[in-house]
Amino acid sequence: MKLYEALLESLVCRVEQGFYPVGSKLPSIRALSKEREVSISTVQEAYQRLEESGYAEVRPKSGYYVRSRGSDVELPDLSRPAQRPLEVTHWDQIYHLLSSSKKDGYKAFGTAMPETNTPTLKPLTKILSRIAANSVGDFLNTSEIQGSAALRKQIARLALDSGCQLHPDDIIITSGCQEALVCSLRAVTSPGDVVATDSPSFYGSTQAIKALGLKALEIPTHAETGISLEALEMALDQWPIKAIQVTPTCNNPLGYTMPEERRKALLRLAQQYDLPIIEDDIYGDLYYRSPRPKTIKAFDEEGRVLLCSSFSKTIAYGLRVGWVAPGQCTDRVLHKKFISTVSSPPLQQEAIAEFIEKGFYERHLRRMRAQYRLNRDRMIDLVKRTAPEGTRISYPEGSYLLWVEFPPEVDSVKLGKRMEQKGVSIAPGVLFSASGKYRNFIRLNFAQVPDSQTEATFRQICEEVRQLIAEA
Amino acid sequence: MKLYEALLESLVCRVEQGFYPVGSKLPSIRALSKEREVSISTVQEAYQRLEESGYAEVRPKSGYYVRSRGSDVELPDLSRPAQRPLEVTHWDQIYHLLSSSKKDGYKAFGTAMPETNTPTLKPLTKILSRIAANSVGDFLNTSEIQGSAALRKQIARLALDSGCQLHPDDIIITSGCQEALVCSLRAVTSPGDVVATDSPSFYGSTQAIKALGLKALEIPTHAETGISLEALEMALDQWPIKAIQVTPTCNNPLGYTMPEERRKALLRLAQQYDLPIIEDDIYGDLYYRSPRPKTIKAFDEEGRVLLCSSFSKTIAYGLRVGWVAPGQCTDRVLHKKFISTVSSPPLQQEAIAEFIEKGFYERHLRRMRAQYRLNRDRMIDLVKRTAPEGTRISYPEGSYLLWVEFPPEVDSVKLGKRMEQKGVSIAPGVLFSASGKYRNFIRLNFAQVPDSQTEATFRQICEEVRQLIAEA
Repeated sequence: MKLYEALLESLVCRVEQGFYPVGSKLPSIRALSKEREVSISTVQEAYQRLEESGYAEVRPKSGYYVRSRGSDVELPDLSRPAQRPLEVTHWDQIYHLLSSSKKDGYKAFGTAMPETNTPTLKPLTKILSRIAANSVGDFLNTSEIQGSAALRKQIARLALDSGCQLHPDDIIITSGCQEALVCSLRAVTSPGDVVATDSPSFYGSTQAIKALGLKALEIPTHAETGISLEALEMALDQWPIKAIQVTPTCNNPLGYTMPEERRKALLRLAQQYDLPIIEDDIYGDLYYRSPRPKTIKAFDEEGRVLLCSSFSKTIAYGLRVGWVAPGQCTDRVLHKKFISTVSSPPLQQEAIAEFIEKGFYERHLRRMRAQYRLNRDRMIDLVKRTAPEGTRISYPEGSYLLWVEFPPEVDSVKLGKRMEQKGVSIAPGVLFSASGKYRNFIRLNFAQVPDSQTEATFRQICEEVRQLIAEA
Repeated sequence: MKLYEALLESLVCRVEQGFYPVGSKLPSIRALSKEREVSISTVQEAYQRLEESGYAEVRPKSGYYVRSRGSDVELPDLSRPAQRPLEVTHWDQIYHLLSSSKKDGYKAFGTAMPETNTPTLKPLTKILSRIAANSVGDFLNTSEIQGSAALRKQIARLALDSGCQLHPDDIIITSGCQEALVCSLRAVTSPGDVVATDSPSFYGSTQAIKALGLKALEIPTHAETGISLEALEMALDQWPIKAIQVTPTCNNPLGYTMPEERRKALLRLAQQYDLPIIEDDIYGDLYYRSPRPKTIKAFDEEGRVLLCSSFSKTIAYGLRVGWVAPGQCTDRVLHKKFISTVSSPPLQQEAIAEFIEKGFYERHLRRMRAQYRLNRDRMIDLVKRTAPEGTRISYPEGSYLLWVEFPPEVDSVKLGKRMEQKGVSIAPGVLFSASGKYRNFIRLNFAQVPDSQTEATFRQICEEVRQLIAEA
């Protein structure tokens, strides 16, 4: 990390924590250089980046001031999904979204792929390449059900950052987070059971609920604090719920991170009703600030939480390496994993283990978090400047996904079809609900630095949105 | 392929097809050299290998004669599994087998791993390494649900060898054959359904039947001709069977290859009862002779057969690349694949596609088929010389797995436990049955060239077997 980057991170942190309030003057370049014992040019560089990222503005002949941000974002309301367990649909649209995004020249606003075009991933390709070259009779021909011991050791080490004490034997490597979620669901439910989920919710897990013959009970979810505990408690009294599934950190698609107190309260509720919690932490390491939030698993002393994650969002989607720490259910999940795919390819696992062990992962995360945070601010700025009146957006504190609520008359399924003809994929809100809710929402991916091309594409989307409003 | 290897292959083919009958004199070295237009030393080399592999013997001052083989192997009887649908157990033993085999210095007789220590796999590691080195922003970040188009094209091309006309769009890439089998089962059954299977049967699929809440109806199976069609027909009248699952080519563990006429008859039966067939062809490309047998799928004009396979046995287990051609059920299987793991890592897929396209796969198969055939004869010879009286063995015509039936008083689960203490893993027969049958059977892996170490280990096994007989 360069000096100016460290300074930038610390400045952003102070602004976000309110240490430098909105509108206040930041320290002069000379004062800060003295305070931090860095050169004038380092401070200049940091301030310039701070300005670019929308945290500060220059007032001529006066200096840098904290800019108003975030706080003026109008968030979506508490979600109001159907108040009964439902079967899940929309597979056709999901398949369409995921396959059309692969076409050449397509603007893939709709997927949840991370940015991989970064120098911090170069060491990974070198490691992969070296391991592959030496793999005959070794990594090519062994593959353990539980996964690479070297990788499980590194995951246990990383878990300390989220407050979790895991032993490598507590962890099972999976083929992506999807397999972790599905094996977890299988381990704790039987066909016909009801699963309570936050809502909106990741479509891979709602589709899995459907495919396993389960029913999803969508619990109203707040755009800042996550699943409503009050609504959940009521539902627990009304329905024979067998498991709770949530994504409390850098939620997809809502973007919120559940406050620690509410996590503890959710765990207490699960204890009270003796239920397992399936905790999806796939975006957790992309929380912008440091330290990252503790997982619910961190407070779980009974092995009640099945913590699922993956390197698909933090490193690269195509690696297909995920993991699960299933607590009490480890043996059962291991059997489900065997049934599902026997084992996952060791090549990627060994490479990721070395990438983490040598510190490359931490370096990569630092860069991506900073990058995504800057992207978020530019994207929010772009949406605010461009979208029609009445549009509300989420304010993600991590990851690279924005949840956009258009006025109620906008049908985002129609919008998706029209944009597709223009070579743009978007993710319509209905995909994130078992009950076809969120029809006037879309999810936007801002993993790549928003540029003039992004701006032009988003303008196209907004024109179409205005057209849809006019037609309504 | 060297000249003598080509000659050897042709000689073995002629012997196996009865062109040179057992006991007959082979052409003189000089005559063969003239007939084939190769050097004397090439013929000498080929004859020497033919002798080493047990196909021929030298009679001093007379020449080479075709040796009696195969025909004197005593095959196991028609299997007699329980005549009712059953729940499947034995997961603990399977897990133990698969994990203990990974320990250092362990003699893994029990697994079904191929030999990967061969120069014909070097091009694959080079390709993998090159693709990995260039993967940032490319293979690292894309992953299609259906799998690599390049690989699906090559699989469609290869399928022509087994008589199948497949379009690349008919194929779905999976994470190993296990995922292909499980997604197929899921696509054609619901919990509670009965699936008819050959017996003994691969434990991965019987375990899947159990995990999906299905019941396995094991059909008696002949060691040379496969699943008994007579018994199957009776079962179809008696039970509400929803699918038929078979491994007709180079069967695991029995070794037989179903004659073409019986394949057609099985398909007719499926048509008559309007049932899908899940055909596991994972070892099909390892059939020793050329051309390889046609799959049942080759005769299927209705899309009734779900053909499952993988490169785990033909190239390397750790690649975890399988595929399925689900016929009518393609859309349903694709959805199951999405639920299971979303998609499989593109790195291995792209590498295998190139490996096949450039002809390396064919070259590798030629070598491995010849190698495994020689290994089989050595292994059979070893078993016949060493095992106690009353032992019967299979006579595989492909792949590298031997099914050994010890006298009825031998408990191979006990045998497995005792051998484990000596650092040897074996696969007890009970793993291959839903009903705990085959307790006096074991499956042996002969992928590696049997050497003095193999001989010593097998002697240890046989000593223990004699001990168990004495104790009984």
